[in-house]
Amino acid sequence: MLFGALEAGGTKMVLAIGNENGEILEQVSIPTETPSITIPKIIEYYKGKEIAALGIGSFGPIDLDKKSKTYGYITSTPKLAWANYDLVGNIKKELPLPIGFDTDVNGSALGEATWGITKDVESSIYITIGTGVGIGVYLNGGLLHGMLHPEAGHVLLSKHPDDKFEGVCPYHPNCLEGLASGPSIEKRWGKKAIDLKDNQKVWEIEAYYIAQALVGYILTLSPHRIVLGGGVMHQEQLFPLIRSKVTELLNGYVRTSQINDMEHYIVPAALNDNQGIMGCIQLAKMELQNK
Amino acid sequence: MLFGALEAGGTKMVLAIGNENGEILEQVSIPTETPSITIPKIIEYYKGKEIAALGIGSFGPIDLDKKSKTYGYITSTPKLAWANYDLVGNIKKELPLPIGFDTDVNGSALGEATWGITKDVESSIYITIGTGVGIGVYLNGGLLHGMLHPEAGHVLLSKHPDDKFEGVCPYHPNCLEGLASGPSIEKRWGKKAIDLKDNQKVWEIEAYYIAQALVGYILTLSPHRIVLGGGVMHQEQLFPLIRSKVTELLNGYVRTSQINDMEHYIVPAALNDNQGIMGCIQLAKMELQNK
Repeated sequence: MLFGALEAGGTKMVLAIGNENGEILEQVSIPTETPSITIPKIIEYYKGKEIAALGIGSFGPIDLDKKSKTYGYITSTPKLAWANYDLVGNIKKELPLPIGFDTDVNGSALGEATWGITKDVESSIYITIGTGVGIGVYLNGGLLHGMLHPEAGHVLLSKHPDDKFEGVCPYHPNCLEGLASGPSIEKRWGKKAIDLKDNQKVWEIEAYYIAQALVGYILTLSPHRIVLGGGVMHQEQLFPLIRSKVTELLNGYVRTSQINDMEHYIVPAALNDNQGIMGCIQLAKMELQNK
Repeated sequence: MLFGALEAGGTKMVLAIGNENGEILEQVSIPTETPSITIPKIIEYYKGKEIAALGIGSFGPIDLDKKSKTYGYITSTPKLAWANYDLVGNIKKELPLPIGFDTDVNGSALGEATWGITKDVESSIYITIGTGVGIGVYLNGGLLHGMLHPEAGHVLLSKHPDDKFEGVCPYHPNCLEGLASGPSIEKRWGKKAIDLKDNQKVWEIEAYYIAQALVGYILTLSPHRIVLGGGVMHQEQLFPLIRSKVTELLNGYVRTSQINDMEHYIVPAALNDNQGIMGCIQLAKMELQNK
């Protein structure tokens, strides 16, 4: 059986066809322009491909409440052409199929939980640290939505004593995204992350912020495993620094076999940066099963 | 149909008999001594009462993983007589009934979600701020456990610029419980909360910490409503201060109808301090239904 998968990002759209085993059979990328340019291209791609359902993991914020009049919309995004845009509805008009819909990062959490590094545990979170910071939460076979969906890239943190940088978030002077996203690293140090590999202070400060956020997630969501993905996390030297800081900050308070085995508790994404699009395949499958 | 309800606290045990509508038909309290003294009294109370099931909301940490060898145990509590104690197993030996088991504060979250202030919403959190600080999380008809259970009373916070107090948590210099529990107020100011009612600075600092924690929970769990209970929250002047600080800290980032209506988003517990024991009745009912 074939499924369509669409990872809708603010700068590019990844379109793929996969099967029920999460195998990607074909994949293309197109730039995210305005809906009137981009949506017809998306529809064109999937038409005639005989997919049974489509799964969309979208940038946000989005409306995931099936009882809401604006279910399936991208809502208050600063990308104005897409603000208050009925993404699911406009695609469904031309592709009358079951369409699964969730946040991009819930898609990644689902991809890893279905086929990747968290497939053996009941609950997990996936954190992407790149241009922005987002988290997806997988719990007991489903994805966490709640009132809206997690926006835990914006959790508030204490500043590192040596960090005088004011952050890049327009909303919060001291949130994770403002202090630890790729753009914040670049603005703080005047270079891209990839060109700062040998500057230890960069990664000490970065790990300090990421670890603080993880401690909050651990205490609040109690996930069985934490996956870190996104461009910044390609700097693999961060992992031991983060694990050690999380252990220091928890200070023995949470005692579980998982926490005692940090190397297998805080782990890199394992699906070669395909966790998002593979998660969209699973969103499609789940939507079809729920019909 | 009758259900037994046991709210197992570190200083007292509340024992009750209720019916399927959450009505408490009788209730007693006994001090929490050692298991060898207290457990026989508990068993004595429920024996012959013709209850169909028992629900226990317990102090912790506790093991909620039904696949674990120590399911039903109180684990690493500093109350040493109860550490590594098989609470459910020892009660079940004498009362061979379905026994529902969860944290005390998950019990309170469930009580409010079933019969109280959050019965109309799909997800909610209940935070108790008293001798300790704990949170219970109700999501899509169930309670959040994860790897352990939320321990979000210990989320890390930024210190208030005017607060030089070092906190009372032995694990964390700047966690919510250490900075905002009843004992922390008493130690910081040299008086009990109830005798500080007219000292505005006390409540400004208190609201500052509680609001920071709530912002973390909102961004991470995205609950439809937040209930604040426990002894400290009987200081009702805290509510407007907390709501206003949460709004200030979120700074317009999360836009939902719920957040726009703060008076109905952050609310006091509504079951006259019976939310915990009523939640235990529901734990018993749910356990019976799952048999």
